[in-house]
Amino acid sequence: MTNQHQKEQAPGRSWAPDPASALPLHRQISNYFMDKIRSGAWPPGMRLAPQRELCRQLGVNRSTVVTALGELSALGLIEGRRGGGTRVADLRAAAADGAVSYGDGVATSGSRAASYGNGMATSGDGAGTDILPVQPAGSWNSYVEEGVHYPNLPTVQDINRLEYEQGLIRLGTGEPSPGLLPGEAMTRVLAELSRQTLPPLSYEAPLGSLGLRRAVSSELAKNGIQADPDSILITSGALQGLQLIAVGLLPRGSTILLEKPSYLYSIHAFQSAGVKFNGLPMDEHGLLTDRLAREARRTKAAMLYSIPSFHNPTGILMDAQRRQKLMGVTGGLGLPILEDGAYQELWLDTPPPLPLKALDREGRVLHLGTLSKSASPGLRIGWIVGPEPVVRRLADIKMQTDYGASSLSQLAAARWLEGGYHEEHLQRLRARLRQRRDAALALLQRHFAGLAAWNVPAGGFYIWLALDKPVPLRTLFRAAHKAGLLLNTGDLYDRSDSRHLRLSYVYASPAELETGLPILAGLIRKLQRPGS
Amino acid sequence: MTNQHQKEQAPGRSWAPDPASALPLHRQISNYFMDKIRSGAWPPGMRLAPQRELCRQLGVNRSTVVTALGELSALGLIEGRRGGGTRVADLRAAAADGAVSYGDGVATSGSRAASYGNGMATSGDGAGTDILPVQPAGSWNSYVEEGVHYPNLPTVQDINRLEYEQGLIRLGTGEPSPGLLPGEAMTRVLAELSRQTLPPLSYEAPLGSLGLRRAVSSELAKNGIQADPDSILITSGALQGLQLIAVGLLPRGSTILLEKPSYLYSIHAFQSAGVKFNGLPMDEHGLLTDRLAREARRTKAAMLYSIPSFHNPTGILMDAQRRQKLMGVTGGLGLPILEDGAYQELWLDTPPPLPLKALDREGRVLHLGTLSKSASPGLRIGWIVGPEPVVRRLADIKMQTDYGASSLSQLAAARWLEGGYHEEHLQRLRARLRQRRDAALALLQRHFAGLAAWNVPAGGFYIWLALDKPVPLRTLFRAAHKAGLLLNTGDLYDRSDSRHLRLSYVYASPAELETGLPILAGLIRKLQRPGS
Repeated sequence: MTNQHQKEQAPGRSWAPDPASALPLHRQISNYFMDKIRSGAWPPGMRLAPQRELCRQLGVNRSTVVTALGELSALGLIEGRRGGGTRVADLRAAAADGAVSYGDGVATSGSRAASYGNGMATSGDGAGTDILPVQPAGSWNSYVEEGVHYPNLPTVQDINRLEYEQGLIRLGTGEPSPGLLPGEAMTRVLAELSRQTLPPLSYEAPLGSLGLRRAVSSELAKNGIQADPDSILITSGALQGLQLIAVGLLPRGSTILLEKPSYLYSIHAFQSAGVKFNGLPMDEHGLLTDRLAREARRTKAAMLYSIPSFHNPTGILMDAQRRQKLMGVTGGLGLPILEDGAYQELWLDTPPPLPLKALDREGRVLHLGTLSKSASPGLRIGWIVGPEPVVRRLADIKMQTDYGASSLSQLAAARWLEGGYHEEHLQRLRARLRQRRDAALALLQRHFAGLAAWNVPAGGFYIWLALDKPVPLRTLFRAAHKAGLLLNTGDLYDRSDSRHLRLSYVYASPAELETGLPILAGLIRKLQRPGS
Repeated sequence: MTNQHQKEQAPGRSWAPDPASALPLHRQISNYFMDKIRSGAWPPGMRLAPQRELCRQLGVNRSTVVTALGELSALGLIEGRRGGGTRVADLRAAAADGAVSYGDGVATSGSRAASYGNGMATSGDGAGTDILPVQPAGSWNSYVEEGVHYPNLPTVQDINRLEYEQGLIRLGTGEPSPGLLPGEAMTRVLAELSRQTLPPLSYEAPLGSLGLRRAVSSELAKNGIQADPDSILITSGALQGLQLIAVGLLPRGSTILLEKPSYLYSIHAFQSAGVKFNGLPMDEHGLLTDRLAREARRTKAAMLYSIPSFHNPTGILMDAQRRQKLMGVTGGLGLPILEDGAYQELWLDTPPPLPLKALDREGRVLHLGTLSKSASPGLRIGWIVGPEPVVRRLADIKMQTDYGASSLSQLAAARWLEGGYHEEHLQRLRARLRQRRDAALALLQRHFAGLAAWNVPAGGFYIWLALDKPVPLRTLFRAAHKAGLLLNTGDLYDRSDSRHLRLSYVYASPAELETGLPILAGLIRKLQRPGS
């Protein structure tokens, strides 16, 4: 199983030619491509990746790719267009022309193949770094670019994809590295669950399993939040909670206030639901409240979104006084608050002040929590705490969306919390994150003094690196990728930003940071050099 | 654990007063309500359920409820309005008036309480059957009725809620009863997984875990579908697949063709994305293709949605000839097809013809599958098979929605398929469903001859009961609920229907059907009687 899992970390595609096979590599490739095209998995009009990219993905050299493509071209299965790259041919059109011996196998490789191979060599090397296939096409072609939902930001799409590319040092990833996750303890949980016959894994109640809601309720009480199981909705991670709130509670065209920069700018949950953002500044104690009332009235704000504890991406911890102030100002306005508590329990030095929800006596705060940042992202278990009518409305939408989170995950999560595994894991995790944070800070001191400033996070995952001079962040991202680094640039969290990077000490190991940070510093210096 | 699970089947709320406590029942109730109100879980303006409903839910008699409400009223925490029911008072407004001794406990119960109790007795019994709390209110009030997403149909909301009410015979539920689910085999899967240390439960690749995609690929091959792991996207159940397609592929305002009636009419995934439906008639061999081309052109249809095998709700099996015809007609139009294969493997007599996806060489068919109908709904594992560019687009949206299905569920599902558990379970399940189907048909013969006609399903879950004369279905639904039956009425699947019921032999046991079907027949006869 461990082996299997490691395979899943492999980049991109599930197939590569087998050097040990009797069949030549180019023939293996053309056979594979032919299957893809004939089965419709690669529909007519779909653009193939540039040759250099194909070589990289398939682990073969250029001449092998050229030969394979030549064979496919000879069969009329693909066609190269000057400047337009290589595309899957429209077989029906070609068949109607009588030009293709469709269905013959790959036995012949005539002159078209040769000339095609040459053509490819001059036109096939676009600037794209896409993994194959690149362009949707065929009868689904236009749809892939349509639909109501926004596609992810290009940088986010790149990050989602490149996270599965091996060998990259991921300097900003907001997820604990596999080594920090509790493989053994989770195995003990499963063993415990399998000691007696499992309950049938039916659909759970709309709010989620009562067992897990009770366990979450006890957990919340430790943080000063009194919420009984009827006020708790189990979600598939906190992200789904945001999604449900976006589509379920907010009318199209409404505005929410939020910290700027914010994690929320990097996802499309709210924008896709037609919700507008109005970002407010922070200082080292958290969101500044002085402009809040004015902005709330001006924009007729529907809600305030805040990450008071160990803010993403800045790491800022809102202090107790600011929390009181915030509750007062928003209380006067009757402004609902969405409190994202994802990092709350991940304090490193001392526990944070009480969450906003613990200060709420009016049912004005919705509070989000998750097991993804500590126990296991892959459990996909989060929760929303709020007034019963609100969580019931959200539960109704959740039932329409996916019929609830996995019952198996809910069983395991309840056991995880009740069995004390969570508390035990958190203690160990905090100690390890403290070491990692301190190591990261020492490296920054060594390599970024005079180049940037940064905060000392008291918890959570992030260091917000503020460069002394702006750099073109998209260029930096690309240069870093070439140098083997994956970055979370500041423009993900504030579109107009050109001076920040989100660094994380939870994914890359201290050794990787030791390799990666000096490289990053070098790239930044180069880009900041006048005339570069 | 089994105990805990059984408790979760309990209706509605997680709390009821304890008759063994020294505290009187009414005081337990008023304390509980007070906590709810003071914590904001029940926000100002929220309407409480009618007294009769409160009695039912809390398991107490009327005078207990009246006393408890009287105490709360005396404290100014709730207010009764003639005709408007009872609502949570706005504490801030009340406090400003100086009318409330907020924070005092429940020690006094003055004259207001008494008069309130009386007032309630005359006005508190609305027609609603809602479980408390009914009406959202407070600062979230308006939002609960807004948002982009449509709320579920009232009947669907009723069904979702009443499914957790104990003692109801669920005549139409489309999910295997807990007794048909593989509790023991699933426990063996978990035990197998916990035999060695689990891989860390990180986020999976956007398409889902490679291990599970490989297992699904092998499974699909048994049904004639050639799809390698790169063409497969793992979803949190087939419903999420529909959701992703609705928001990810179809432009707002586009039209899809589908069978009428159809399951798709009962969910809001597509309507919420602004997609219109154009329903086409069926005969006993499946969707009629004669009007298809004309309608597709007239409506500029973006897609055809079909459930060719054991259609929901009619149970119809599209025969091989009709499948060929359908592929031909839609091929000529270049019309993409969304094939819902949820019931495909649940044949009872002989395997169904090849799925449409197996006939597709152009990448024109998206195929949906799921483990929810056989292995376990609670695993929340389904898949979409289609052209790579399409599944990659959907994967991108999925990453934005919930970061993928539970890794633990994916691990278990892969083991379930690879370990042969699935095939073994299917064989047993088919034998048991055959018996249940035959028992249901015999009961229909006994109680519905001369009242309705029905099909003999060759697979799947459903019998489509066609009443000889129309009845007001919403009235029938309510009358049935009072008589202890939960119905899936035909209007869920075709808004204009007044003559059909979806019956299912997979949830209610043969004994329950034996009790429930004659009651249903009686109710129908009564409603059809002239002048009723």
